[in-house]
Amino acid sequence: MSCHPGLATPPLGGVGRPRTTWAPAPHGVSMELYIERDQLIRGLARVQGVVERRTTNPVLSHVLLSARGDSLQMTATDSALTLVADYPATVENAGELSVDAQRLFQIARTLTDSTVHLSLSKANRLHIRCGKAEFNVVGSSPDDYPPVPTRDERARLVVVGGDLRRLIEETLSSISADDNRYGLNGGHLEQITTDQGDSRLRLVTTDGSRLSWSEAPFEGNFGLGERMLVPRKALGEVRKLVDLDESEWTVSFGQRSAAFSTEGLTLMLRLIDGEFPDYRQVLPSAAKRRVRVQRGPFTAALKRVSIMASDRNHSVRFAFDEDRLVMTAHNVDAGDVREELPADLEGTPLFTGFNVRYFQDILAATRGDEMVLELGEPLDPCLVRIPDRDDCMFVVMPMRLD
Amino acid sequence: MSCHPGLATPPLGGVGRPRTTWAPAPHGVSMELYIERDQLIRGLARVQGVVERRTTNPVLSHVLLSARGDSLQMTATDSALTLVADYPATVENAGELSVDAQRLFQIARTLTDSTVHLSLSKANRLHIRCGKAEFNVVGSSPDDYPPVPTRDERARLVVVGGDLRRLIEETLSSISADDNRYGLNGGHLEQITTDQGDSRLRLVTTDGSRLSWSEAPFEGNFGLGERMLVPRKALGEVRKLVDLDESEWTVSFGQRSAAFSTEGLTLMLRLIDGEFPDYRQVLPSAAKRRVRVQRGPFTAALKRVSIMASDRNHSVRFAFDEDRLVMTAHNVDAGDVREELPADLEGTPLFTGFNVRYFQDILAATRGDEMVLELGEPLDPCLVRIPDRDDCMFVVMPMRLD
Repeated sequence: MSCHPGLATPPLGGVGRPRTTWAPAPHGVSMELYIERDQLIRGLARVQGVVERRTTNPVLSHVLLSARGDSLQMTATDSALTLVADYPATVENAGELSVDAQRLFQIARTLTDSTVHLSLSKANRLHIRCGKAEFNVVGSSPDDYPPVPTRDERARLVVVGGDLRRLIEETLSSISADDNRYGLNGGHLEQITTDQGDSRLRLVTTDGSRLSWSEAPFEGNFGLGERMLVPRKALGEVRKLVDLDESEWTVSFGQRSAAFSTEGLTLMLRLIDGEFPDYRQVLPSAAKRRVRVQRGPFTAALKRVSIMASDRNHSVRFAFDEDRLVMTAHNVDAGDVREELPADLEGTPLFTGFNVRYFQDILAATRGDEMVLELGEPLDPCLVRIPDRDDCMFVVMPMRLD
Repeated sequence: MSCHPGLATPPLGGVGRPRTTWAPAPHGVSMELYIERDQLIRGLARVQGVVERRTTNPVLSHVLLSARGDSLQMTATDSALTLVADYPATVENAGELSVDAQRLFQIARTLTDSTVHLSLSKANRLHIRCGKAEFNVVGSSPDDYPPVPTRDERARLVVVGGDLRRLIEETLSSISADDNRYGLNGGHLEQITTDQGDSRLRLVTTDGSRLSWSEAPFEGNFGLGERMLVPRKALGEVRKLVDLDESEWTVSFGQRSAAFSTEGLTLMLRLIDGEFPDYRQVLPSAAKRRVRVQRGPFTAALKRVSIMASDRNHSVRFAFDEDRLVMTAHNVDAGDVREELPADLEGTPLFTGFNVRYFQDILAATRGDEMVLELGEPLDPCLVRIPDRDDCMFVVMPMRLD
């Protein structure tokens, strides 16, 4: 855990003793600090995605507050994923306490003065004072909070924030939602070497019907033969945690665990102990047909045909002609739709079927004016590329239409 | 039903015959028209709140499309509430058809060209063409659509759009959500005479624990001894339908039904056949205490105390002192809160309890920098007034705190 240097936050005049003696702090108080309201809100916003809302173990819905040095440390865990982060604070007394993360966030967002005073009122009660507002929040002893996992760092590499976010954004939607397909419930991170001989980090995801990969440069040592299958929830949280494109993130990992960390913040996680499939097998070889479509018209057309596509498999018939793509869908209950858009085809005409959601997910995750579809025979996988991007690729399996 | 004069919408060049012969219109086609996409979307947006989504009678989730003259008429009904409105269209062939309102709205919003061509493809199929996009939507025969209720107009009055919207906005939240309290499930509309001798329309709502009224000028004849209890859903729809503040709305009613109409649009409804209570009984007489609070601090303080108020009755203790209001709430599971704000009290100090939601609803429905609370003894109702507004008033019943 790197420790944030911390800005000194002096107690402001506005946060004096309350004018009544209501809820006085008892003698021998431990934990007392002043923190900027915006820092408190930022910290609590970050832990909301990690804590468990509906759990039989209430402490997993708590955030652990630890005051020490010149920072307030917040820890949240669902037992598989643990977030630890430091926020600058003026600590008068070191101490620890855990409270319900959602309730504390709710309170923090209603505070109007810029500085918040946090202290322990009586046993396991967090006293919050901000302007004329005062709260006593029921909490739990830090002894009841799960221990933070120990780090196992066999390999360590560094990647830039913006690249890390892009890796995840371009691949997250292809992760399988089926909990029974254990090896597909995460993103497979590996090191690859490009044709130019550069080393890159590649994140690959698949649900069996489609596949996405995205690559980014990195520094450091990936290690030989390392396997790293990062759970979907952890990837989703990392994406939310990347605040600044130019920040440096360290990815470290061992046999069963990994950590994503940046200045003042660490996300620790248990890796998925499953087998990611040999995805290179499904990649088509040289394409027989290549179709170029414009993003705008393709996006609009997909939106329209998806209305009539079946709710079950979202299947739509794609007919590729010399200079156009005609999409049709038929739904017994609702009706049918036909959509036509310009498309440049190299190769002979072809018709096949696809789940349109897959193309919509690719469009939502990428940018650029054009998209290239590489096609073989009607039941061959379709490879989707973004022109001028050799660091991402998508594969969509076709559907047999009845 | 007044009929909108209608703008001529000539067929645009972009909407020609499709280049393929896919889904051709059969011989003897009836109903064919061109309509601006924005008019179509506007009309379909308006019917969404009226149609029933989950119903055993599918036709109640439909919108009836009737092309005739120079307009497309859309009718929606849940059998108690019926909306009929006209939109300018270029009608090539008159005709009628009903289709699922939600699906047609979903389709209309995805269309990108400015003119839409609607026609009957085969029996009970609506053919939609816009640019290169074509849909065939499964519909139903107009014969299966419920008949529009006949109008019973014993009285008729006119009110300005902005006033009508305000009447509803200031009273809607006090309508009882309890379906068993039949006489409280709507707004009571009556004519009153002010101290200055002016006639006004007054809308009164109550759920037994609070009461709201709002008044507005009107023209026309209310009729003697007329009772009019308008269901909550109808009031909510009228509020949404008021587009323009300066538009004129006609309210007409008979024994069991009423109608709200403006140019090109009519909402017909069944009145509630229940007894609205004699609300004047609960109004407190001259107030012993008068408290003036600022809207901003009061709103912020209520938001904070509501977090700790019990989920069941949202009760908070209010202590009114000479120059401040102190609010406290206690929740066994969550903790407690204390909030203090400046308040000018005329009269002796008092403490009592309130459901804070009621004050939050009043604040959300009104404007102005200040609010005046008129109080009697701890268990007397609290009267809430907005300074310089003699045309609205709110009553909040106190709570006995344990």
